Amino acid sequence: MKIAVLGTGMVGQTLAGRLDELDHDVTVGTRDPEATRARATPGESGTPPFSVWQAEHPRVTLSTFATATEHADLIINATAGVASLGALAAAGAENLEGKVVLDLANTLDFSHGFPPSLSVANTDSLAEQIQRAHPTAKVVKSLNTMSCKVMVNPAGVPGDHLVFVCGDDTAAKVAVEGLLRQLGWAQGAILDLGGLGAARGTEMILPLWLSVMQKLGTADFNFAIARA
Amino acid sequence: MKIAVLGTGMVGQTLAGRLDELDHDVTVGTRDPEATRARATPGESGTPPFSVWQAEHPRVTLSTFATATEHADLIINATAGVASLGALAAAGAENLEGKVVLDLANTLDFSHGFPPSLSVANTDSLAEQIQRAHPTAKVVKSLNTMSCKVMVNPAGVPGDHLVFVCGDDTAAKVAVEGLLRQLGWAQGAILDLGGLGAARGTEMILPLWLSVMQKLGTADFNFAIARA
Repeated sequence: MKIAVLGTGMVGQTLAGRLDELDHDVTVGTRDPEATRARATPGESGTPPFSVWQAEHPRVTLSTFATATEHADLIINATAGVASLGALAAAGAENLEGKVVLDLANTLDFSHGFPPSLSVANTDSLAEQIQRAHPTAKVVKSLNTMSCKVMVNPAGVPGDHLVFVCGDDTAAKVAVEGLLRQLGWAQGAILDLGGLGAARGTEMILPLWLSVMQKLGTADFNFAIARA
Repeated sequence: MKIAVLGTGMVGQTLAGRLDELDHDVTVGTRDPEATRARATPGESGTPPFSVWQAEHPRVTLSTFATATEHADLIINATAGVASLGALAAAGAENLEGKVVLDLANTLDFSHGFPPSLSVANTDSLAEQIQRAHPTAKVVKSLNTMSCKVMVNPAGVPGDHLVFVCGDDTAAKVAVEGLLRQLGWAQGAILDLGGLGAARGTEMILPLWLSVMQKLGTADFNFAIARA
């Protein structure tokens, strides 16, 4: 499948790398490819410069948001949540039309320090904002409730932990669930919460995720649900 | 222990009933005891009128918020979150001074229908608001991330699910953890997330809790964390 991964940070690199291993035709989208290639300093969390990662992933191409999405069958939003609407606007409405947009971003706002708040929460969500900005796109929210390492290797965390999925288009959710299965998620680990409004709940879990990460001293965990 | 349970709804009844079974000296606090006793209609979720419950729990007394808290060693806020600050103000600052206040309320705002939003979220929490309003009280947030049935019977849900605890006073958290152990929570099931600011995260999990409840068709579940 032709997949555009928007975002060149740790999440984008991790997703793009794994999807490339799975033999998808992956293009990474960025605002300014020349600037991304020229950057020599590590990103947040010690992520290597994109050029270093690119050298290890020669089949993956880097292009503008518009070029990456134009040729994609499925688009993954792995940009920072506070920059996502701008990135998707730069991609161009015509390049998102009718396409599945898997949004895994979180609107973490670090402008007041740690712990961050969310720039969108409670009465709205980033996923719904993206859907409203691109009404013909088929937005599915998923994978945003865990570290990117767990996203692409769920078996790395033992037990029956979950990935939540929500969206207003059933076919788009089926497409995303197919991708999740390829990433290693068992069918029983995929919990469809219904329409895209449920993204409010999954996006709002991030502050708790951060508290748990601080408490455990690791991001190698995931939420699960015990049922009677 | 002398415990005041503020709130006469389903959560208050369930907590007060279980603590009475555990031989604590329980007083339920309400705004207007006469009005509470006179009410003959079931509450939200089909909760029986308090008078019916009271007849089955003759050792539990009903009194004003002020009288209930005045004689209590530990106070449990089981009022509706949107009414909690008012209830605690009615209790009187002098009756909360130096005492442990276990806050298990959630600020669900149903004024715009279902699903509810939260009346406080993201950059503040109800627990922190209570702490600011009563600076000498020792506020601990816990138990708010599950149904009241699970609160008092964690073994009713199989598996290693969790109860989160946070607060700024260590002794108060120890007191609350002691109560949680009596309610049936194993030591390993109690996750201390640190200071009271972590209540933002645990309160913000409610929209996801509601989505999962709708999906599963039951409230007999609880959050868990799978760890590598």
